[in-house]
Amino acid sequence: MNKLVRDKNPLVHCLTNYVTVNDVANAILAVGGSPIMADDIDEVAEIVSIANAVVVNIGTLNERTINSMEKAVVAANLRSIPAILDPVGVGVSTLRNKTVERFLRTVHFTAIRGNLSEMAYCAGKNAKARGVDASEEDSEHSAIEIAQTVAEKYSCIAIITGKEDFVSDGEHLVIIKNGVPAMKKITGTGCMLSGILGAYLGACEDKFSAVVNAVTSMGIAGEIAFEKYYGTGSLRVGIIDALSRIDDDIISKRGKILL
Amino acid sequence: MNKLVRDKNPLVHCLTNYVTVNDVANAILAVGGSPIMADDIDEVAEIVSIANAVVVNIGTLNERTINSMEKAVVAANLRSIPAILDPVGVGVSTLRNKTVERFLRTVHFTAIRGNLSEMAYCAGKNAKARGVDASEEDSEHSAIEIAQTVAEKYSCIAIITGKEDFVSDGEHLVIIKNGVPAMKKITGTGCMLSGILGAYLGACEDKFSAVVNAVTSMGIAGEIAFEKYYGTGSLRVGIIDALSRIDDDIISKRGKILL
Amino acid sequence: MNKLVRDKNPLVHCLTNYVTVNDVANAILAVGGSPIMADDIDEVAEIVSIANAVVVNIGTLNERTINSMEKAVVAANLRSIPAILDPVGVGVSTLRNKTVERFLRTVHFTAIRGNLSEMAYCAGKNAKARGVDASEEDSEHSAIEIAQTVAEKYSCIAIITGKEDFVSDGEHLVIIKNGVPAMKKITGTGCMLSGILGAYLGACEDKFSAVVNAVTSMGIAGEIAFEKYYGTGSLRVGIIDALSRIDDDIISKRGKILL
Repeated sequence: MNKLVRDKNPLVHCLTNYVTVNDVANAILAVGGSPIMADDIDEVAEIVSIANAVVVNIGTLNERTINSMEKAVVAANLRSIPAILDPVGVGVSTLRNKTVERFLRTVHFTAIRGNLSEMAYCAGKNAKARGVDASEEDSEHSAIEIAQTVAEKYSCIAIITGKEDFVSDGEHLVIIKNGVPAMKKITGTGCMLSGILGAYLGACEDKFSAVVNAVTSMGIAGEIAFEKYYGTGSLRVGIIDALSRIDDDIISKRGKILL
Repeated sequence: MNKLVRDKNPLVHCLTNYVTVNDVANAILAVGGSPIMADDIDEVAEIVSIANAVVVNIGTLNERTINSMEKAVVAANLRSIPAILDPVGVGVSTLRNKTVERFLRTVHFTAIRGNLSEMAYCAGKNAKARGVDASEEDSEHSAIEIAQTVAEKYSCIAIITGKEDFVSDGEHLVIIKNGVPAMKKITGTGCMLSGILGAYLGACEDKFSAVVNAVTSMGIAGEIAFEKYYGTGSLRVGIIDALSRIDDDIISKRGKILL
Repeated sequence: MNKLVRDKNPLVHCLTNYVTVNDVANAILAVGGSPIMADDIDEVAEIVSIANAVVVNIGTLNERTINSMEKAVVAANLRSIPAILDPVGVGVSTLRNKTVERFLRTVHFTAIRGNLSEMAYCAGKNAKARGVDASEEDSEHSAIEIAQTVAEKYSCIAIITGKEDFVSDGEHLVIIKNGVPAMKKITGTGCMLSGILGAYLGACEDKFSAVVNAVTSMGIAGEIAFEKYYGTGSLRVGIIDALSRIDDDIISKRGKILL
């Protein structure tokens, strides 16, 4: 499926945080997409009109960008192109909670990706996020339940990332066991994955497989980069390197996908 | 001419996008300049008063920063220090089009750098940009014509970057054949070049040669980094490495400059 | 003391500039903290309520973020958690001067870190900053005097970084001779250190030792990265690598701390 992404070269419109935005852009380019970052309310609808997918990431949200994000997803919904939500840090502040609740009420997302506590919040469970890190009590059981709840509640593909990744569309569930713990020691692996989801979903018809491939790509890239581990700075560089070399052969050989 | 940049250590005031801003700052430092990023309207004129050049990049423009950009270039014009415009994505949205048209009407730029479709827009041709990537039909003929039109229309040095780079001041034309296609697979090579243009133009009297040297430096840095190519993450790091090691000797040896 | 940081894994709330924010986040993670970046005035107090330290960096300040910064430090003061100020470029513009003066009047910082000219401004001396770089006339004598003045005037730990680093709490003075000059050729080493100060101060009871350890960690990381110097791009990556491998053993073996 990565070949499809590289062939179609989808344009991915990102409204994302300023912490990891450069990594998100380079990750999208690495897997074969083209990123465009634009967040002014006066241009987002026009940008969406030429885009193949929209990625919304609330990592450093503010009043100005929240309105732009909503307008962009409204435009994406009208055009029936995929929209992806990364509810960074939801559960941590009323502003994040209200913003996510508003988005989930007013617009539709093709996919929602977060860690367990963020997704628990979306599912309506009383989980408490601590910063942007996943809580450590991730039990496989609750992850499956939460992924299914979010998928059903919002008619979307729900992705919970952590030690293991869970993908549910409400009917099907896939667990992906790629990745390494060291990925948590760099900022942005989650944001990068959300960007990559935009590239895969923007290029591929089969949305569920697109998501599974994107999640697996990111995990494998982490593993490959970790083979030469020397520290977290070069790990980050190595992940982009690995993403830029990934192909369907590597994905099928190294993917640890449990149906 | 790079020695001049390293000796003078020009202060380059950048009002630039948040996607590639870190690479722009590090690229300016790498060639011998000092970057300062500041975009609040209450301080830009004061910052310009101590700067040697101003770089305006509209990659993630918004109402607030557009006004700051204009004010900064007005101040640069009053002080007769070089101002550089990078019209990222012009042609893609009305906001970008209006902003660039406004800038081109109200202030003067020493140099304008963009890909073929962005520069075609500045020239008044009906080109259609796709995101921030150059269109593939770049024909040498139209590039030369567009570079000359922009240069004459706005009394500036026009730089079109792509597979080949075109530099025109309306009278002279130079084609630079350095660089590698892989540079398109990382975000920010264009933005970095615009930053480097600020450093070279801020340090050197001969503006046309300064531009040619800056463009050539960037292309050579891409080539050197590509010699050890392993992926796009390390390519990006390698470009900054190569810029930090560049000197006039390397430029004269490796430069493919066609007069 | 680094072990304490890794064990406690303090949450460091950063209101920082968009130029170096990614490096700041990765540096905090590398030494064992968890970064959270949030700058909307509607959420900063809530974020502070779960944080272990707050870092304020005015590198790309604007009216919106200035108010958020003040509110965050007010909240930090109420909770008695450490707040760190990085007065980037103070002395360069009236906006920066007024902002720093306002902060120093309305809130309390546990630590203030800057280069000599920035700290001279805070001390009330008429130093003139040039961009964000330290002036070259750094004399050890004036650095000691300025560090002591800032420490006494604002009842804080004052840190002046440069060729040598000076740490004063008004009573004690420590000079740290780690680090390499090449660190000045990349953007963000100062910002990263301010972030790391947040991690150390957020985890450790002995504030003065925490600061000395943080400053020493950064200098040693620069030295280790410089041992494999190839250019400034990989130097930056190498510094994060080295920070992620640092431990108390390395600090005690390589630290050049003069009491």
